[in-house]
Amino acid sequence: MSSTTHLLDFLEEPIPGVGTYDDFHTIDWVREKCKDRERHRKINAKKKESAWEFTKSLYDAWSGWLVVTLTGLASGALAGLIDIAADWLNDIKEGVCLNAMWFNHEQCCWGSNETTFAERDKCPQWKSWAGLILGQEEGPGSYIMNYFMYIYWALSFAFLAVLLVKVFAPYACGSGIPEIKTILSGFIIRGYLGKWTLLIKTVTLVLAVASGLSLGKEGPLVHVACCCGNIFSYLFPKYSKNEAKKREVLSAASAAGVSVAFGAPIGGVLFSLEEVSYYFPLKTLWRSFFAALVAAFVLRSINPFGNSRLVLFYVEYHTPWYLFELIPFILLGVFGGLWGSTRFGKYPILEVIFVAAITAVVAFPNPYTRQNTSELIKELFTDCGPLESSQLCQYRSQMNGSKAFVDASPNKPAGPGVYAAIWQLCLALIFKIIMTIFTFGLKVPAGLFIPSMAIGAIAGRIVGIAVEQLAYYHHDWLVFREWCEVGTDCITPGLYAMVGAAACLGGVTRMTVSLVVIVFELTGGLEYIVPLMAAVMTSKWVGDAFGREGIYESHIRLNGYPFLDAKEEFTHTTLAREVMRPRRSDPPLAVLTQDDLTVEELQGIINETSYNGFPVIVSKESQRLVGFALRRDITIAIENARRKQEGILLTSRVYFTQHAPTLPADSPRPLKLRSILDMSPFTVTDHTPMEIVVDIFRKLGLRQCLVTHNGRLLGIITKKDILRHMAQMANQDPDNIMFN
Amino acid sequence: MSSTTHLLDFLEEPIPGVGTYDDFHTIDWVREKCKDRERHRKINAKKKESAWEFTKSLYDAWSGWLVVTLTGLASGALAGLIDIAADWLNDIKEGVCLNAMWFNHEQCCWGSNETTFAERDKCPQWKSWAGLILGQEEGPGSYIMNYFMYIYWALSFAFLAVLLVKVFAPYACGSGIPEIKTILSGFIIRGYLGKWTLLIKTVTLVLAVASGLSLGKEGPLVHVACCCGNIFSYLFPKYSKNEAKKREVLSAASAAGVSVAFGAPIGGVLFSLEEVSYYFPLKTLWRSFFAALVAAFVLRSINPFGNSRLVLFYVEYHTPWYLFELIPFILLGVFGGLWGSTRFGKYPILEVIFVAAITAVVAFPNPYTRQNTSELIKELFTDCGPLESSQLCQYRSQMNGSKAFVDASPNKPAGPGVYAAIWQLCLALIFKIIMTIFTFGLKVPAGLFIPSMAIGAIAGRIVGIAVEQLAYYHHDWLVFREWCEVGTDCITPGLYAMVGAAACLGGVTRMTVSLVVIVFELTGGLEYIVPLMAAVMTSKWVGDAFGREGIYESHIRLNGYPFLDAKEEFTHTTLAREVMRPRRSDPPLAVLTQDDLTVEELQGIINETSYNGFPVIVSKESQRLVGFALRRDITIAIENARRKQEGILLTSRVYFTQHAPTLPADSPRPLKLRSILDMSPFTVTDHTPMEIVVDIFRKLGLRQCLVTHNGRLLGIITKKDILRHMAQMANQDPDNIMFN
Repeated sequence: MSSTTHLLDFLEEPIPGVGTYDDFHTIDWVREKCKDRERHRKINAKKKESAWEFTKSLYDAWSGWLVVTLTGLASGALAGLIDIAADWLNDIKEGVCLNAMWFNHEQCCWGSNETTFAERDKCPQWKSWAGLILGQEEGPGSYIMNYFMYIYWALSFAFLAVLLVKVFAPYACGSGIPEIKTILSGFIIRGYLGKWTLLIKTVTLVLAVASGLSLGKEGPLVHVACCCGNIFSYLFPKYSKNEAKKREVLSAASAAGVSVAFGAPIGGVLFSLEEVSYYFPLKTLWRSFFAALVAAFVLRSINPFGNSRLVLFYVEYHTPWYLFELIPFILLGVFGGLWGSTRFGKYPILEVIFVAAITAVVAFPNPYTRQNTSELIKELFTDCGPLESSQLCQYRSQMNGSKAFVDASPNKPAGPGVYAAIWQLCLALIFKIIMTIFTFGLKVPAGLFIPSMAIGAIAGRIVGIAVEQLAYYHHDWLVFREWCEVGTDCITPGLYAMVGAAACLGGVTRMTVSLVVIVFELTGGLEYIVPLMAAVMTSKWVGDAFGREGIYESHIRLNGYPFLDAKEEFTHTTLAREVMRPRRSDPPLAVLTQDDLTVEELQGIINETSYNGFPVIVSKESQRLVGFALRRDITIAIENARRKQEGILLTSRVYFTQHAPTLPADSPRPLKLRSILDMSPFTVTDHTPMEIVVDIFRKLGLRQCLVTHNGRLLGIITKKDILRHMAQMANQDPDNIMFN
Repeated sequence: MSSTTHLLDFLEEPIPGVGTYDDFHTIDWVREKCKDRERHRKINAKKKESAWEFTKSLYDAWSGWLVVTLTGLASGALAGLIDIAADWLNDIKEGVCLNAMWFNHEQCCWGSNETTFAERDKCPQWKSWAGLILGQEEGPGSYIMNYFMYIYWALSFAFLAVLLVKVFAPYACGSGIPEIKTILSGFIIRGYLGKWTLLIKTVTLVLAVASGLSLGKEGPLVHVACCCGNIFSYLFPKYSKNEAKKREVLSAASAAGVSVAFGAPIGGVLFSLEEVSYYFPLKTLWRSFFAALVAAFVLRSINPFGNSRLVLFYVEYHTPWYLFELIPFILLGVFGGLWGSTRFGKYPILEVIFVAAITAVVAFPNPYTRQNTSELIKELFTDCGPLESSQLCQYRSQMNGSKAFVDASPNKPAGPGVYAAIWQLCLALIFKIIMTIFTFGLKVPAGLFIPSMAIGAIAGRIVGIAVEQLAYYHHDWLVFREWCEVGTDCITPGLYAMVGAAACLGGVTRMTVSLVVIVFELTGGLEYIVPLMAAVMTSKWVGDAFGREGIYESHIRLNGYPFLDAKEEFTHTTLAREVMRPRRSDPPLAVLTQDDLTVEELQGIINETSYNGFPVIVSKESQRLVGFALRRDITIAIENARRKQEGILLTSRVYFTQHAPTLPADSPRPLKLRSILDMSPFTVTDHTPMEIVVDIFRKLGLRQCLVTHNGRLLGIITKKDILRHMAQMANQDPDNIMFN
């Protein structure tokens, strides 16, 4: 049996550098997977030799679990750290704790004597800046002082964040999810997931969140988790030396990132599967789940929200929903879809300081914009119970309002607090919409999840209160008469807020299943899945009607990454021969013949062209294909041979065949390059429909594919050719695809 | 631009029958998907023509949602029907309701005056058979009478079930999941998902469950749901005429099936993704989720369990778990793995009546084997609260046992009831294990989910009670001293039962994520995911150590279906040329030349060989590949031409080229067969490693692939060749692959 396959050849005489990739190039999934199986076979063959080898093979088998465990631990710990630090810095904007600088407002008042629930935020240890500097807590002077300090701190944090990003790690800006999608699809961006990016992203994320800019930490947390995954994968040669295997770890890491962002491990896995991953074998599904769980449990042990809950916005509703409520829910879905078709990030020139200043100036007077966005969402989600002291729950008491036992609180007329809250919420909604549009293009770590959810939650709560008051004042209307008995609780405004939040998040990201699962994990009940699905589906359809791509895809396209979207169907009828190069007017394809080139001629071909690889054929006359050789590999192999092998001259014959060609007696020693030849290049015929070619490229993760006609080599199609062709068919500018 | 692709050719002159498949053949995924895109393009092009065409295009776009909605509705309704009917028939074995024959025991006693909780099952309207026939409810005579009637009914049900299956629908036996996996991977088994199978499977499933045989209805419910999906897909030409699209509906249907089996919609989707589906685009994920939800909600509206819960075994535990409990949990995992490596179904000769008789005779005296298996699992899962009247909860009361308020029931010493229960549980465990092994091979609808869960739950509960009593009597041991304070509740035996059930189910099916999600949905809390994961992972590893395949894979292999498992990695170093046919000793490959065969010669080649298709080459000398033609298509095309086209004789020249070859003046009219030629056959080189070839076959769903060397055709590899090669490499009998 032949043991001299090109692969074994390649391993028998490994040339250093062959099989690695340049920056901004696409990896060869097939070759990487073959390399990994070869490594696995070698370990398996060796493991019976000695106990030590057996231990090594066990370690190798377990290293996958080890690396995802480490990634999960680190992601959970970092998420906890970021939560705590951002909370503390956010409170610094308003005041300081006298006993201990490093306590936030809540921690500062834990030891206080004020035990009333409503007064829990007021304690002598916590001083507002006016109280500290002017010595008085009340009055217009101290209000202005606090206002000024709020703006000062917000600006400082924003400035520091943008400075750190600009100077140390430009890759740390934005949410990072578009780039992670691109990397997972097989692109190399060196340093994007490195330790510097991790460090700077963590620090600046805290600063950016604390500065009060309209951005969220959830998307960047996915980037942080992927950095952890990448860094830990360097501990294991199995993952560090194989780009395909490394991407398995990154898929698991992104699941861990979403898991800690929302406290939703299953949602995280589905997010990784549905939204970011490209190559997702079942083994990865299982490990992603594990990583997501580990991360979630670490975060819960750190307990940054102080409620020992895994989830960010834990809610419990006590009333069911009614069929007529689907109408407002679908309306919220339409709103979410419209929000999702907003175009962000077109204003990257606007400077961070400017946006931060406006944000701070406008945000301070309105309690709903001043507070932490997560807390705002939580308040909007929460139903008004008898213990709720929020302004949103100041309903006028009914006749039974004075009774001690108000279990099923009936719908009540809104009090002045609710009316004031509605006005403030409307202003907050407008403010959030405008500021989020401007903020997303800034060069700081910025996620869109939380701002989108906040916008949806505000809109939802407003609609919810409106429907509730309608039901109270018009309980004789047909819909209400049927479902809402007088004096019972019928409408839950908090549920509307949740549905609105899901709709807006769905509109922006076009996630479907993972989003519903995330929100399902937040609420912990199947009860409300139908309203959520109705809203999320409506928002997706409305969003798709205004433009098929979600925010990440449009970002990938704007940045010109070579990303072949698995979700977008190729629906045109073109054939491979219309897409392949060379076109009719082009010079003929640059090819190598298998045994009649000299080193000099080969170098000439390489220097004259800029292609990444060359088909090798039997002879110019027959045009029969033998294999494919990569430019990088040829260059490395020639250099290596001229340095190490004696007698290799410029006039040496280069051959890719098994045996050296018969040469004249006086010719110099020939150079065998069979080891770098890919003897199983992918080929399609010129009549193959492009939809099949695109399918092959996606499913096998190809970089290029050769085109033949009746057995003769005709041309080549690269991933870039396909992307350019797709852009052309969609009437877009094909020159946007800049990399590779 | 050339508009005459082979595809358009094919559509311009459609030959009836071309493009369909024979029974027990594999579909061509690539061709099916191309066909669907072509259909979609035609509708899109037409939709601007008129309002009617636009409406038709909308209907087409929505038909996917429509078909999954209908499937969900039907699956939910059928599941409810089966639950209710099986419950009623099960109670018929013990007695009859005097007011109304069609009431089961519980419904019969709803109107009764006996309001005590313990006495709720005893009411005058419900008569046991002894009470009805002998007129007395107590005493040895009536016990024997009841025993006899129990056996009589069990035998009748079993006999009726096996008779119906044998006479009307042999495909209705077993769980059906191995066959559904095979069908989803692209195999055609006509009638397997037809209306007769659906009808007979539904009826016999009720009978088989009611007969008390050790089998479950969960697996067969997946088959029932898939039948619904298949039948509804016939309403829509988009799905009925396209085998690839139909499989999208079937994937969604299998999710709906699991969703109603366990009340776990998300788990159902993951089950479909992880366990049964082959081709699972993201669009299908979303629709599967929808189908699963619709089915779950229909089932809940029917409310067969009378608890208005979506889930079968809803449990709520109030105590956390402790780290040391991981040891018993992992032991349960080992037990589950051992159970999973049991070999079932080797005794199909044993007759149903025999097994049913033994089951009935042995099951009746033991309350744990007599009751419905689902109810047994539910009882074992349930924690002992103050209201629990089960024998399993007869602990000896403590000093505070007489107090009215026992909220956090502390661990207590076991009373005589518990000891009796443990003995009965041990006997039930042995009985269940033996009977399940014998039952699974029988020719009745039989699932393995519930029996496996029951076995695990029994073992788990026994271990749980043992640990609990250890903790009570030895609370000074280090592990217990650390975690269990005296007088508090520390061990939850119900949790052990749940972990054991998950471990056994995992061992049998080797499911991982979907299983954990299903059990997570059953309990509704993330709290217990870590114990579950520990047990499920252990059971998977132990099971894998005894043989890599789960029950479905081993069943597929035993039945010889051509199923290329996506989970099993191909790890050998063979090359394509070692697997391809013809082998060295074989006669040369049967090929067709593109333009110099006559109809007679072509028919000769077809009649002499039994291959499913033939490569078409330029000429025998050059061996350059042009395309691939299917045997079935050639036969149909020649018959069609001889019937419809004038002047086609046996001496007519057949050509596959674009233009007719130049022929002598007196020759008969030539026959153009280009429309049936696949001009984009998949090719690999002879040096391609088989691991890549296997990968291509799996990912693209190929049936065959041609092998070339330096542009010349060398041989062919079919899916069957690959399966045979894989069996050879694993030292199995390659002749087991019988179909295709």
